[in-house]
Amino acid sequence: SGLVHLKNPHLDSMEEDVLYHLDLGTKTHNLPAMFGDIKFVCVGGSPNRMKAFAQFMHKEVGLAGDGEDLADICAGTDHCATSRAGPVLSISHEMGIPSISIMLHELIKLLHHAKCRDVTIIRIGTSGGLGIEAGSVVITDTAVDSFKPRFEQVVLDDVVVRSTELDKDLAEELLACSKEIPDFPTLIGHTMCTYDFYEGQGRLDRALCSFSSEKKLECLKRAYDAGVRNIEMESTAFAALCRLCGLKGESSC
Amino acid sequence: SGLVHLKNPHLDSMEEDVLYHLDLGTKTHNLPAMFGDIKFVCVGGSPNRMKAFAQFMHKEVGLAGDGEDLADICAGTDHCATSRAGPVLSISHEMGIPSISIMLHELIKLLHHAKCRDVTIIRIGTSGGLGIEAGSVVITDTAVDSFKPRFEQVVLDDVVVRSTELDKDLAEELLACSKEIPDFPTLIGHTMCTYDFYEGQGRLDRALCSFSSEKKLECLKRAYDAGVRNIEMESTAFAALCRLCGLKGESSC
Repeated sequence: SGLVHLKNPHLDSMEEDVLYHLDLGTKTHNLPAMFGDIKFVCVGGSPNRMKAFAQFMHKEVGLAGDGEDLADICAGTDHCATSRAGPVLSISHEMGIPSISIMLHELIKLLHHAKCRDVTIIRIGTSGGLGIEAGSVVITDTAVDSFKPRFEQVVLDDVVVRSTELDKDLAEELLACSKEIPDFPTLIGHTMCTYDFYEGQGRLDRALCSFSSEKKLECLKRAYDAGVRNIEMESTAFAALCRLCGLKGESSC
Repeated sequence: SGLVHLKNPHLDSMEEDVLYHLDLGTKTHNLPAMFGDIKFVCVGGSPNRMKAFAQFMHKEVGLAGDGEDLADICAGTDHCATSRAGPVLSISHEMGIPSISIMLHELIKLLHHAKCRDVTIIRIGTSGGLGIEAGSVVITDTAVDSFKPRFEQVVLDDVVVRSTELDKDLAEELLACSKEIPDFPTLIGHTMCTYDFYEGQGRLDRALCSFSSEKKLECLKRAYDAGVRNIEMESTAFAALCRLCGLKGESSC
């Protein structure tokens, strides 16, 4: 049916579902009227950048005006900046796996409550390239945690292992789009997802560091040889949740 | 000497240190002049709340004016909101371990470059209480990852295990302060740090959920019996980094 299905029997018995970090709720807002026609959701870390993206999309989809005064739909919270331009919803998720996980749980419930159909979700954050031209866009086929194509999620006191493969057809579709734009270096590859910016990614300019520049380069080279083309901090959780909830998702950073 | 010592030999050979997420740098800013007299750093997740806290401190330390127009020192970035009120620096770090780790690496380098002495750092975020009166403040003696008093940090392709004990004397000092204020329920206890808000903390109102309400309550009760009094998402990384860099730190959420 193209609807978003939640895999949680507890939600059926709840009188109200409050999407706390989005400042929305099933009793306080008419979610089908506000969001029922959304077809694309684009997510990225920075609130300012996601607002600028919504303004760009406002013009791209041919809406009236310059989009400069686009409202923040979730103005009551400073965790997520959320704007829409026609069928495109733009949401920021801050940095890191915990933060994007929170936003995704609430976004997926929002799409369900709003009865949205056939939604595509694309992460358009920034990342660091590995052995590729600066400014390239990497479309992720599989997100990897260090070198493993999986995401370990702690659920209460258990660890659950989830797949981190993304939608291959959507990846090819995005790659085809990129070819229509001149000088827009784009490729498909693995994306390494780390738990922080400094220590997990082997940066030398951190508060404490115990390894050599050589050890760092050896490790990055090994990642390149394993097919990794960029490094960021959200893709494993993003891939795992999209897949589990049947959402067509891609990450292109 | 009370100075903040960095444990990273690579920094000495760098011509410039750019604190990217704070929008500050050793060549672009006179850090000793801007921050050299800082004695307390208070950190919390929400930018709006940390700005409000700086305004509150502005009045508390007796500075002129109402602090309403307090400048954001790092206005060029939307990752951290940073204001100061006399000797108190107030910084937001968004949600989760990756995000607070980034801010702490840059903050610790900032305190070092600014030649600050005898700095105390306190996390004043929000948390969920466990078996305690709503509104209570929990001062953390030890942060625990699930039930283990330790933090596992991925460094390149290794996992490094770090201690998560916080400063016991500072905890007692904060507890003594709380007693001077009427109706301010405060206690010292363990703080459980999770990797997300929904799945790690056993919330039932998430997009996917495979366990029962009974299993959740059994797990939370076990945490209470092990000394946990609140749950949040940053304390293990905070405790580990403060301890390793010799910073007097506490978490009171």
